[in-house]
Amino acid sequence: MKPLPEALRASIGARVDLIDTPALVVDLDAMERNIQRMAEFARKHRVRWRPHAKMHKSAELALLMQQAGAQGVCVQKVAEAEALAAGGVNDIYISNQVVAGPKLLRTARLAAQLAARGGRLAIAVDSPEGIERLAEAMVLAGGEASIDVFVEIDVGQGRCGVPPGEAAVPLAQAIARHAPRLRFAGLQAYHGRAQHLPGMAERREAIAGVVRAAADTRQRIEAAGIPVPLITGSGTGTLVHEAASGVYGELQAGSFLFMDADYARNEREPAQPQFEHALFVKTQVISVCDTHAVCDAGHKSHAIDSGLPVVALLPPDRALRYANGGDEHGLLHAESPKTRLPALGRMLWLIPGHCDPTVNLHDHLIGVRGGLALGTVERIIRVDARGALT
Amino acid sequence: MKPLPEALRASIGARVDLIDTPALVVDLDAMERNIQRMAEFARKHRVRWRPHAKMHKSAELALLMQQAGAQGVCVQKVAEAEALAAGGVNDIYISNQVVAGPKLLRTARLAAQLAARGGRLAIAVDSPEGIERLAEAMVLAGGEASIDVFVEIDVGQGRCGVPPGEAAVPLAQAIARHAPRLRFAGLQAYHGRAQHLPGMAERREAIAGVVRAAADTRQRIEAAGIPVPLITGSGTGTLVHEAASGVYGELQAGSFLFMDADYARNEREPAQPQFEHALFVKTQVISVCDTHAVCDAGHKSHAIDSGLPVVALLPPDRALRYANGGDEHGLLHAESPKTRLPALGRMLWLIPGHCDPTVNLHDHLIGVRGGLALGTVERIIRVDARGALT
Repeated sequence: MKPLPEALRASIGARVDLIDTPALVVDLDAMERNIQRMAEFARKHRVRWRPHAKMHKSAELALLMQQAGAQGVCVQKVAEAEALAAGGVNDIYISNQVVAGPKLLRTARLAAQLAARGGRLAIAVDSPEGIERLAEAMVLAGGEASIDVFVEIDVGQGRCGVPPGEAAVPLAQAIARHAPRLRFAGLQAYHGRAQHLPGMAERREAIAGVVRAAADTRQRIEAAGIPVPLITGSGTGTLVHEAASGVYGELQAGSFLFMDADYARNEREPAQPQFEHALFVKTQVISVCDTHAVCDAGHKSHAIDSGLPVVALLPPDRALRYANGGDEHGLLHAESPKTRLPALGRMLWLIPGHCDPTVNLHDHLIGVRGGLALGTVERIIRVDARGALT
Repeated sequence: MKPLPEALRASIGARVDLIDTPALVVDLDAMERNIQRMAEFARKHRVRWRPHAKMHKSAELALLMQQAGAQGVCVQKVAEAEALAAGGVNDIYISNQVVAGPKLLRTARLAAQLAARGGRLAIAVDSPEGIERLAEAMVLAGGEASIDVFVEIDVGQGRCGVPPGEAAVPLAQAIARHAPRLRFAGLQAYHGRAQHLPGMAERREAIAGVVRAAADTRQRIEAAGIPVPLITGSGTGTLVHEAASGVYGELQAGSFLFMDADYARNEREPAQPQFEHALFVKTQVISVCDTHAVCDAGHKSHAIDSGLPVVALLPPDRALRYANGGDEHGLLHAESPKTRLPALGRMLWLIPGHCDPTVNLHDHLIGVRGGLALGTVERIIRVDARGALT
């Protein structure tokens, strides 16, 4: 693993106000409270949690959550799995379709590596051809390793997956025919769009349909004589429903760790743990004129696919609205005519609209202990799988 | 500089169809034609070109354009300047506001380094305080190095810069007072939004106003007894106007090198060189159902701030429309009911909506010679300043 850049290593122990901008900063206290709340929630509902590492992409954070009770990680890419395995994560589920020969050979090699150290690898499929390609790669890679295989059903996302119900049965059978190299592990059933529905009632209704579809699919596969060990899915927006369903055995929620402006805008279920914002872009005012100020964080510092960032931690009479200023700039407008614009050099904190692609813009997260006002840099967290696309 | 990853090094000489996905691929022939067209355009108009490296972030590409006649590079960040200087670029202009003490000290150090090897560094300012901070850093850094300083005027972008006209005069005077460490180098006058106006007439009108404002500001500064050596600005969307103005001495256009879907949608001036798309995301179909196919490139592979990518290089009866499938997926819909969806594993080429933040998602560009159908990988181009935010 690459050594930490000198400037970053030197920053450990420094006061928060010395962190140069723009920088992606984690409030470690808030993050750890989020982990404890999630661990407690999962224990209470007797459900496993396998947080999605496509969000944080960091072996260090994956292992931290495992210590708190998490069951390994989900990832979306073989390269993410490789990066996290290199960082010590042993239980990895690629919750996505992989069909390219070279990637499937890497998958097979990783399955053998993880098995050799007592871990395991799982993957999702949604087509007979995908299953055949995977089985072929496992044979080609040689050795005795096996891989857990989930059948993905489309429970409303409209992306990958076969329709729920009968269509999943031949896939489960095809996987079973390739035993012991492939092990049918259950159903991947994730409704991503439901996570972001703003209202409680619409999320509850969407997930009720998801749960019925998943339960029905399981029943049909089991009627064909194949046990369905697990149904896995869910996210931060709807986890109360999957957890209470009695059907889902595992939650894949990842964003709870940091939260973002998009999730925070939605109506919160009373039963949902009160997750806090723990991820911030620290930025600085570099220009001021009569009408606005300009900060040094644009959409190369934070992703804007789920909306612009929110300017945090300001008293109401200093509230600022962030407007898009392009790749390297943010425009800061006063929320009311009485608001005084911030001075040149003033440090500000942004809550990103969407944590996953924001983290992917950065090589490191700066972990702060003791709060964003008076805290100090405790550690630098590597984004091991940044840019791991293949 | 970091060695190239083994897998990438091994790919040199490989056929295009063996490039794993998603990957950012440069059509080197098309790119080199774009460079020749730009060089010829600048020669014809007797104007310098200093392409913005915030787009490609690569020392290799910066030096390639210098060989074709470009005058160094523009960048937006001190860290970008440092990365390109480390890669051998000697003439660098930070066309942005920098006010933080640590960054200004790095700027001063870089100015000395570049001067020592016969190069030079320039920077923009838009406030008296910014000038004082810069001058202080140059003194603190010691040595005899000086820095070129441009006064940024806001010619319609509504971001940084003082209003054109009288407000720029005291800034030019303040810089002159700090001679010889600061050298007043002219005016930074860039109208970013005008680049993306779709119609020819509206772009022409916007830049006519820009040119008047810049010329008026120059006249006022020169009336105060300070020569204005250069007016610099412009971009790929409007360069015909600044080049023909007789007022601009330098063009900062960067996107012409690769072009993107956003620029290509706009009405093209007849006088504008016919720049070609040279940057593509190679992607692959990983799931197919009755209604759509899914590819493995989402907005972690390409930026979507200026719209979704366009699916390129398909015959009309196979045309596909890309819809947002989230961080790791793209949804491919048939353009007409008769279109057959692509098969599992089918390779496709996307033209990104916006080249700058797309390049910033990738550590390397894969340079292909001989076209995207039958070509081979000629070289791997490092994105030296990827993630260089500070």
